Amino acid sequence: MTLWTVPDHFRDELPPAAERLESLRRQWLDRLRVHGYQLVAPPLIEYLDALTVGSGRDLAERTFQVVDPLTGKPVAVRPDMTPQIARIDAHLLNRSGVTRLCYAGPVAHARPANLLALREPWQLGAELYGHAGVEADCEVACLLLRLLAEAGLRHVRLECAHMAIFRALTRGWSEADAETLFTLLRAKDRADLQRFLAGQELPAEVRAALLWLPHAYGGEEVLAEARRRLPDWPEIAAARTQLTALAKALAAEGAAVGFDLADLRGYYYHTGVMFAAFAPGSAAAVALGGRYDGMGAAFGRARPATGFSIDLRAVVTLLPLSPLPGAILAPALGADAPAKQRTALVERVAALRAAGEVVVDELPGHPRESWFEAGCTRQLVWERGAWHVVPFAE
Amino acid sequence: MTLWTVPDHFRDELPPAAERLESLRRQWLDRLRVHGYQLVAPPLIEYLDALTVGSGRDLAERTFQVVDPLTGKPVAVRPDMTPQIARIDAHLLNRSGVTRLCYAGPVAHARPANLLALREPWQLGAELYGHAGVEADCEVACLLLRLLAEAGLRHVRLECAHMAIFRALTRGWSEADAETLFTLLRAKDRADLQRFLAGQELPAEVRAALLWLPHAYGGEEVLAEARRRLPDWPEIAAARTQLTALAKALAAEGAAVGFDLADLRGYYYHTGVMFAAFAPGSAAAVALGGRYDGMGAAFGRARPATGFSIDLRAVVTLLPLSPLPGAILAPALGADAPAKQRTALVERVAALRAAGEVVVDELPGHPRESWFEAGCTRQLVWERGAWHVVPFAE
Repeated sequence: MTLWTVPDHFRDELPPAAERLESLRRQWLDRLRVHGYQLVAPPLIEYLDALTVGSGRDLAERTFQVVDPLTGKPVAVRPDMTPQIARIDAHLLNRSGVTRLCYAGPVAHARPANLLALREPWQLGAELYGHAGVEADCEVACLLLRLLAEAGLRHVRLECAHMAIFRALTRGWSEADAETLFTLLRAKDRADLQRFLAGQELPAEVRAALLWLPHAYGGEEVLAEARRRLPDWPEIAAARTQLTALAKALAAEGAAVGFDLADLRGYYYHTGVMFAAFAPGSAAAVALGGRYDGMGAAFGRARPATGFSIDLRAVVTLLPLSPLPGAILAPALGADAPAKQRTALVERVAALRAAGEVVVDELPGHPRESWFEAGCTRQLVWERGAWHVVPFAE
Repeated sequence: MTLWTVPDHFRDELPPAAERLESLRRQWLDRLRVHGYQLVAPPLIEYLDALTVGSGRDLAERTFQVVDPLTGKPVAVRPDMTPQIARIDAHLLNRSGVTRLCYAGPVAHARPANLLALREPWQLGAELYGHAGVEADCEVACLLLRLLAEAGLRHVRLECAHMAIFRALTRGWSEADAETLFTLLRAKDRADLQRFLAGQELPAEVRAALLWLPHAYGGEEVLAEARRRLPDWPEIAAARTQLTALAKALAAEGAAVGFDLADLRGYYYHTGVMFAAFAPGSAAAVALGGRYDGMGAAFGRARPATGFSIDLRAVVTLLPLSPLPGAILAPALGADAPAKQRTALVERVAALRAAGEVVVDELPGHPRESWFEAGCTRQLVWERGAWHVVPFAE
């Protein structure tokens, strides 16, 4: 019995990786806070139906589900926090105006998103409720760019898409057919897409549009081509206008912006502009965001909604490492140490710690190697009537 | 269907409570860091057997268990992080000397600890491995006192006990009988204890000692009485010596210290000194700690071990509230605003945010009430060629 193994696609974060994750989490929550995003923390475990509102079959199949012994109802470990934040906005806060919320916490997936993915992403995100205009999407997307840049992530690229194009082209479809198409487009599976569409009765312009979508990626020229290739419907025209506005706002922040109209990387609950952030070193998107106006209704109150979320654990591996100074060992004074020396040690250690230095109290009877192992590179030594920090002699 | 309800004994943390929890978490992790406790973060979900090592029946019954779809084995949402940290020390870090670790994260209980308890405590703790002497217990207990004091918790009382007394008195018992006794002592159920002991064949001195334990609470006189009431065995004498040393160290920090030798509030895995912190306003202990030397062996390497853990969510409700200044609303400038005014706004907002002020960007078309609702008490106004922060007029 090997009790020390953890299940596949789960992992311990050890020093110093755990510390780097903690710093990044703080830095990002602080940035969101000063932009007016108020922190909330929903439960780790909730009723399954609430957790998977609007998320489609895919997510429900990827949750850790269990029957709640207190209520007998199916509950699950949250696989995604966004529906929880929408519930808080719609039902608990119940504000009528613009509401900005942020959050950070672990989520769990019964099956990993891909072969390399952890089943416990640490989701950090920001959500903006109550504003239907594209200004809100621009605010959150620009804030996402800023978080990634401030963390030191270079050469970030944002790929934009718009769920309303998909929704317009599938209007009147059965939910099951629409979800199948969504999955095929997400997978960029052109052959299966053709086979699937061959079996559907569709107006010629819709069929042509859907077959074009997997080719609709690149720069600004994609929006121009969309004007010719997609039906001339008002909701599609509005989608193009919003994408143009979003791209302009992102470009003003210095971002590399692209379009990939079939790249429906978010969840099935999205309804408007969507964006995915990519960075060198990761094939998967490091952050996802977009508009999901429908969701609040399930919790009693329809609300315009947009936001983004980032997997902290995925991002931190892409960041440059900065080395930290080693800890300082403070000696354990014997019972016969002079009071002056003892008092001076307590004061010096307190001052060093207040300045952010790590000072480790010596415990008696351990060899010096044990302190190297614990990361001590320096020690406090009593010399000429005062305590001095000196490097450990080799 | 009321999708917006969360299961009983789970709760959302809303603004500003979530923010207060975040501050306390940071403050405590920072304090632990400068004392040399390195941050680790074990998985949310692990194999059930690893999570409940040495914890007795009680804990296994209180976990959310599920079959892992990838491995077919029983896994659970962690109900307690201490065994995970012991696994990290014993198996992953594999250091031979003193190792100090800290952690913070949610844990989940299928059944709440009591009628008022949440099923999702946020456990924060510190563990010290590799030192068998009572100096290590004193270090962690004093550190716990310091965390509680720095958080603003007043009139904290520490109750000390020693698991070796229980272990010595039950030597040779079946695991099931020992666990039953543990539960009865924990519950301070004297009548059931008497009935249970009446059914056991025991030496007279052991029976007398076990019947005395529920009365063994109070101040220093308890240790003196223990000398007369408990068998004169070396491990019990050692336990008394360690309790004396712990009480002395805690008293030197100015703590109110008591003894309650039947108060086995920790988990079944404890083996040495134990302590529980109480504060006015809470009948339950706000923090628990103590020695649990046995645990590492299950993970391949026996190690001396001691530490404590605190439930952040239980403590934060006991702390005094300090009000925060409201947010500042930054106006959305129309397309025709002068460039000078626009540039000055961007600079002023960045400076305010860098100083920690919350500045909310206005989104067009919302009434003033919406900004009050979002916590804005001030706004930026352009006057005499500069942006000024002024209170919202009533």
